[in-house]
Amino acid sequence: MNHNPLTWSCPIPKDQYPHILLAHGGGGKLMHQLIQKLFVTAFRNPDLELQHDGALLDLPANRIAFTTDSYVVRPLFFPGGNIGHLAVHGTVNDLAMCGARPLFLSAGFILEEGLSVDTLWDVVTAMQHSAQESGVRIVTGDTKVVEKGKGDGLYINTAGVGVIPEGVSISPKNIRPGDVIILNGDIARHGLAILSVRESLAFESEILSDTAPLSGLVQALLDNHIPVHCLRDATRGGVGSVLIELAESSGFQISVDEPSIPVREDVRGVCEILGFDPMFIANEGRMVAFVPSSHAEQALEQMRRHPLGKDAGIIGRVNDQKHPIVTIKNFIGSQRVLDMPSGEQLPRIC
Amino acid sequence: MNHNPLTWSCPIPKDQYPHILLAHGGGGKLMHQLIQKLFVTAFRNPDLELQHDGALLDLPANRIAFTTDSYVVRPLFFPGGNIGHLAVHGTVNDLAMCGARPLFLSAGFILEEGLSVDTLWDVVTAMQHSAQESGVRIVTGDTKVVEKGKGDGLYINTAGVGVIPEGVSISPKNIRPGDVIILNGDIARHGLAILSVRESLAFESEILSDTAPLSGLVQALLDNHIPVHCLRDATRGGVGSVLIELAESSGFQISVDEPSIPVREDVRGVCEILGFDPMFIANEGRMVAFVPSSHAEQALEQMRRHPLGKDAGIIGRVNDQKHPIVTIKNFIGSQRVLDMPSGEQLPRIC
Repeated sequence: MNHNPLTWSCPIPKDQYPHILLAHGGGGKLMHQLIQKLFVTAFRNPDLELQHDGALLDLPANRIAFTTDSYVVRPLFFPGGNIGHLAVHGTVNDLAMCGARPLFLSAGFILEEGLSVDTLWDVVTAMQHSAQESGVRIVTGDTKVVEKGKGDGLYINTAGVGVIPEGVSISPKNIRPGDVIILNGDIARHGLAILSVRESLAFESEILSDTAPLSGLVQALLDNHIPVHCLRDATRGGVGSVLIELAESSGFQISVDEPSIPVREDVRGVCEILGFDPMFIANEGRMVAFVPSSHAEQALEQMRRHPLGKDAGIIGRVNDQKHPIVTIKNFIGSQRVLDMPSGEQLPRIC
Repeated sequence: MNHNPLTWSCPIPKDQYPHILLAHGGGGKLMHQLIQKLFVTAFRNPDLELQHDGALLDLPANRIAFTTDSYVVRPLFFPGGNIGHLAVHGTVNDLAMCGARPLFLSAGFILEEGLSVDTLWDVVTAMQHSAQESGVRIVTGDTKVVEKGKGDGLYINTAGVGVIPEGVSISPKNIRPGDVIILNGDIARHGLAILSVRESLAFESEILSDTAPLSGLVQALLDNHIPVHCLRDATRGGVGSVLIELAESSGFQISVDEPSIPVREDVRGVCEILGFDPMFIANEGRMVAFVPSSHAEQALEQMRRHPLGKDAGIIGRVNDQKHPIVTIKNFIGSQRVLDMPSGEQLPRIC
């Protein structure tokens, strides 16, 4: 994935308001200038409606998925991406996990007074880059400014609308005993990438975030008529939390084979030193797919053809016990129950 | 409007986490408890999908409006409402201004560590009350927690989806010379209500915010086949900014008659003392409607039947000059050009 923001330069001259002022949020001339010069330049597309209170959109279907996420990642820039990439990928992925084709995003910005306009520009162009990469358009937005000390640079909310193709039904309710669980790649990089910059840790090799849009990978499964039962991206809480949640909502026991879960050597090393379990570290481009075992090989084949699924593999199975826990068998074959941490290992990772 | 929140008591016992902790945002047990006990209890409805990354929704039309707004009002509670009412009314109104029937809202919360859970409950139940009042359902959401000092209690983003009935086309592009401009009631109360609590000003009479959902009022116009050209709610920047924006986007000159704009005596008095122009003070339940003069009387009649339109009146007209300015004639008949303030009179009013 190329996460370089678009290489345009910021359209607001440096000598003219290099930092965000409270007045940029006030509905007056400065705010109009910020919207017209900065946001519109970056997000320009035929559906971005400026003169109106909302975007008017034609939908190719009557069944939609609708989702929202706020992004408060600290710091705003990290190895492999920035808050702008996350704000698009995260919401696109939530739509994809519903089996929807993501189409439209909204973008709500809460800017802290004093934020550098150049920083905002880098974030906004990263959003536009990610939107193009994901096949979605940012069609409506909002900007608020809060006083210095009442924010942390900037927070972004995106909401997304996607259409659900006829016949597609992907939900935790559809999980069945016998389903295999496929993971699309190595885990725990996003969380560690954030940690490395936040705590100024110098790892031996640079660990880049895995942030990426999963919509193409999901589309590849659906286009090839794989009867996917459930999809879930493993963000906050990591693969472990996601599996525990899905055991709970499906009611069935899940068993996982730890050695089958790809963890890069450097990532495993850092986790060991810091006392983290990679199963509970956040990812931003990783998902688990529940598919009937009859279609497991076909699903793996389709996923491995996609750049974001080349390391895809089966990591576990749904058992027929009506006992909603996750058991994990480790490298020496001993089995334990996977338990959700009460808080989180790292706050503000997305 | 009755803005009392639902009278249920907070479902999280006071002796158990009375304040928000960072771990409430972490994807672990505490966060699940907060979502299940607090948000789900307040927002319960058939479309609120818990087990999924987004809500799956059937739409009665193929043309939708999609909008978003973040709410950062300070303080969170003010005479006549709280941030929860605004977060629903504001987004519902943006959809209504597109001619859409608002159906679904998302809700994204950014909570500051240390926020009282009781406060959150009051806000969330106000949201549910306003949603019911507006005929929308809150179907998907997200919660993030930021460290103490990196927020201001709580920020809310809502995005909204509504359907646009066939044949309805409401847009600044449809403004035509000869259109009359109807305002639905007295102005400038919301901004002053915020100011009164923020600056601890004791006005002679209590000035309550006008926050309200305008969807019913718009529906009354559309149901009665009034060929509305354009609608705009007069929030940040007030009626003045809205008219200036619409003159600019339509390209036509707008003339306004100041004495025809209702301003309550106490509101006018406070504005005079503080040096504010009520035309540029925020409202949260006021809109301007542009209708052809042939339908002006009919539109007024329909609006006046609705509680939010009982004081509706014609405040101005669109001229045939292609000169995008707003002129305003005052009480003694002298005319001036209305100019947008460069910043805002009051920051963080919504």
